[in-house]
Amino acid sequence: MMTSLLEKFGRLATDDAPGQEVRQASTHHANLLKGRTLDGMPVDFSHGDVDAFEPAPGTLEAFVQGVRVGGKRAYTEYRGDAEIRHGLAAKLERFTGAPVSASEGLMVTPGTQGALFLAIASTVSAGDKVAIVRPDYFANRKLVEFFGGEIVPVSLDYLGTTTSSGIDLSGLEDALRAGAKVFVFSNPNNPTGVIYCREDVESISRLAVRYGVTVIVDQLYARQIFDGADYWHLRAGDVDPDRIITIMGPSKTESLSGYRLGVAFGSPAIISRMEKLQAIVSLRAAGYSQSVLQSWFDEPTGWMEERIRLHQIIRDDLIESFDSVEGVRVRRPQGGSYLFPRLPKLSVSMRDFVRILRHQAAVTVTPGTEFSPHSDDSVRLNFSQARQPAARAVERVVQLVERYRA
Amino acid sequence: MMTSLLEKFGRLATDDAPGQEVRQASTHHANLLKGRTLDGMPVDFSHGDVDAFEPAPGTLEAFVQGVRVGGKRAYTEYRGDAEIRHGLAAKLERFTGAPVSASEGLMVTPGTQGALFLAIASTVSAGDKVAIVRPDYFANRKLVEFFGGEIVPVSLDYLGTTTSSGIDLSGLEDALRAGAKVFVFSNPNNPTGVIYCREDVESISRLAVRYGVTVIVDQLYARQIFDGADYWHLRAGDVDPDRIITIMGPSKTESLSGYRLGVAFGSPAIISRMEKLQAIVSLRAAGYSQSVLQSWFDEPTGWMEERIRLHQIIRDDLIESFDSVEGVRVRRPQGGSYLFPRLPKLSVSMRDFVRILRHQAAVTVTPGTEFSPHSDDSVRLNFSQARQPAARAVERVVQLVERYRA
Repeated sequence: MMTSLLEKFGRLATDDAPGQEVRQASTHHANLLKGRTLDGMPVDFSHGDVDAFEPAPGTLEAFVQGVRVGGKRAYTEYRGDAEIRHGLAAKLERFTGAPVSASEGLMVTPGTQGALFLAIASTVSAGDKVAIVRPDYFANRKLVEFFGGEIVPVSLDYLGTTTSSGIDLSGLEDALRAGAKVFVFSNPNNPTGVIYCREDVESISRLAVRYGVTVIVDQLYARQIFDGADYWHLRAGDVDPDRIITIMGPSKTESLSGYRLGVAFGSPAIISRMEKLQAIVSLRAAGYSQSVLQSWFDEPTGWMEERIRLHQIIRDDLIESFDSVEGVRVRRPQGGSYLFPRLPKLSVSMRDFVRILRHQAAVTVTPGTEFSPHSDDSVRLNFSQARQPAARAVERVVQLVERYRA
Repeated sequence: MMTSLLEKFGRLATDDAPGQEVRQASTHHANLLKGRTLDGMPVDFSHGDVDAFEPAPGTLEAFVQGVRVGGKRAYTEYRGDAEIRHGLAAKLERFTGAPVSASEGLMVTPGTQGALFLAIASTVSAGDKVAIVRPDYFANRKLVEFFGGEIVPVSLDYLGTTTSSGIDLSGLEDALRAGAKVFVFSNPNNPTGVIYCREDVESISRLAVRYGVTVIVDQLYARQIFDGADYWHLRAGDVDPDRIITIMGPSKTESLSGYRLGVAFGSPAIISRMEKLQAIVSLRAAGYSQSVLQSWFDEPTGWMEERIRLHQIIRDDLIESFDSVEGVRVRRPQGGSYLFPRLPKLSVSMRDFVRILRHQAAVTVTPGTEFSPHSDDSVRLNFSQARQPAARAVERVVQLVERYRA
């Protein structure tokens, strides 16, 4: 028994996970180092910098108001406070263009990570096949493996096209035909920033209905869309609403990660199972934090547009730097805060290069292998950062790419 | 697959769980009702009333300070902010009388529920035998079942003695001899308020060492001890520190449930697995909330003593009411905020009686079967309530016990 437990947790390795770099021993790559350390302000691209892009206005006030509400807000239903769910349902219905039931079809969760965990735990049993996009958010894979599911990968050729997402739709159909009962994906895609275009979303809907599949769609970045691009909500299309769970949250664009809030909405049957599990996982999202959701989607006029405009500028700065390097390929993200450049062949492994970047350039990025076993030539950068330090940091990355080029 | 998933979630039923009563349909017991409704202020004994016993002073200020710290506090390591862990380790070392490693042996969790979930997930695999006290906190059983463990019950004869806890130590040894690899219990016991005396704790330590067992001890109420009773920390005894996880948190005595905070400390190997799992469950306890732990154990002089004194008065009020009823048996809790009276035989099932109490007396209690399948004659009351309304509410319970007596 112990062996299988240790194996199971071995697959959950977090050594290279975003934010955990501080726990790495810093010496083992010493003999690989070439040249001197580059000076510059440290930048941690493993997550957004909420000091550069501060929490949306009014959130701390909403939290304090929640503390004032007192016991009723401290002890909510496991699925979240009823009043807050009612407010959210109306907003999410407007935003996504399809009905949301506040009483049966929506749940407040401890972050979107909490929503993903509960949704996958509530739909995947040991031995179940689950279709997962490659690359996609690393926890999707780890969650399916933790519950003993079998991953059927669906590739996303994000560098091969700019007119669609690049999802391999016939690969998806093969996976469903082979018995996958659940399909999990993020839109905009994390780590590439790809948006699934209308045709992609309609094809996914059609396949989901045809094969009777449950779809879990992580739309964490759906409010941060660049260049005025269109965004298509899967749940608003021709789908079986009892088989779709949509996940969102205010941790990214709105910089509220410190409050740990997410929402899952859609299928009442799945939400009901998720709540039962929530009861033994952590009871509920922190009650006072839930109050912050009352200010979500109610940011001051123009605030979101300005935030998107500023991110778009940083995106374009960094893309320009990467595009100047021979052998680097990067797709311009249509949404979200991630860049996922493919680097040229290096003389060290990507895992070592990522550690060297921290050591010699004070730059933290996340190795591509967190997102797909085939992405060992790529790194992910969250560009929700102060503009100048981020630009300088990417210049240092570029210098080290040249220094360690194979 | 789907059947086993539905079965698995069926066992997680939360209809009667504390705080979920609001989701029950209110009509199905209508034909069982006798007599008229009793007037009185509604009292919800399913959890403590943080409006009556307010959060410890300084907590909101500590939270706001955390928001001011900014990004560093929003994105902590999955096991929690290093600075906060260092402060906690020193406090918990002093409190429990045994070393705590801030870097390797302590983790901040989303509530003590989060700690229990992670600890059990990190020690129990499908098919493993786990020793569980009956009665004990309901999630212990549900968690073991969720991970496919096999429960080996150990009885607690809390009404048969007042000089010890009443734990069946030879039953515990039988369970360990039969192969149980993990023992989970709460001390003070939830729901009975029993404290494990020195001899009990020493016997548990001895058995744990002899059989090489991992012990998870939930000490959520270890700061709220009545009548100056002695309290024995398992981890401070003659134990294998690599096989003990102790769980505490500020949600109860300190009324900080709205911040969702807990801590687990002890075995570095288990804490390491817990952190890996935390990464896919909800990343971390809400970052800003973690700041509140800096004020924990630093309450103003006399604050804790006064809180204990007030709870002891309410305990004694309610015990007096219950003791006046023929056929009711209740043990005077030595710690914590729970009463677990055994009621006389009624003309309706306990499940119906609990619903009738809500309907006819505006009193919410938790059915004993949440804590043990053999406790269908008992109910749990959290007496951390405003004194007068609680006393009146128990008078109404007593009236309805008489009305529905078999």
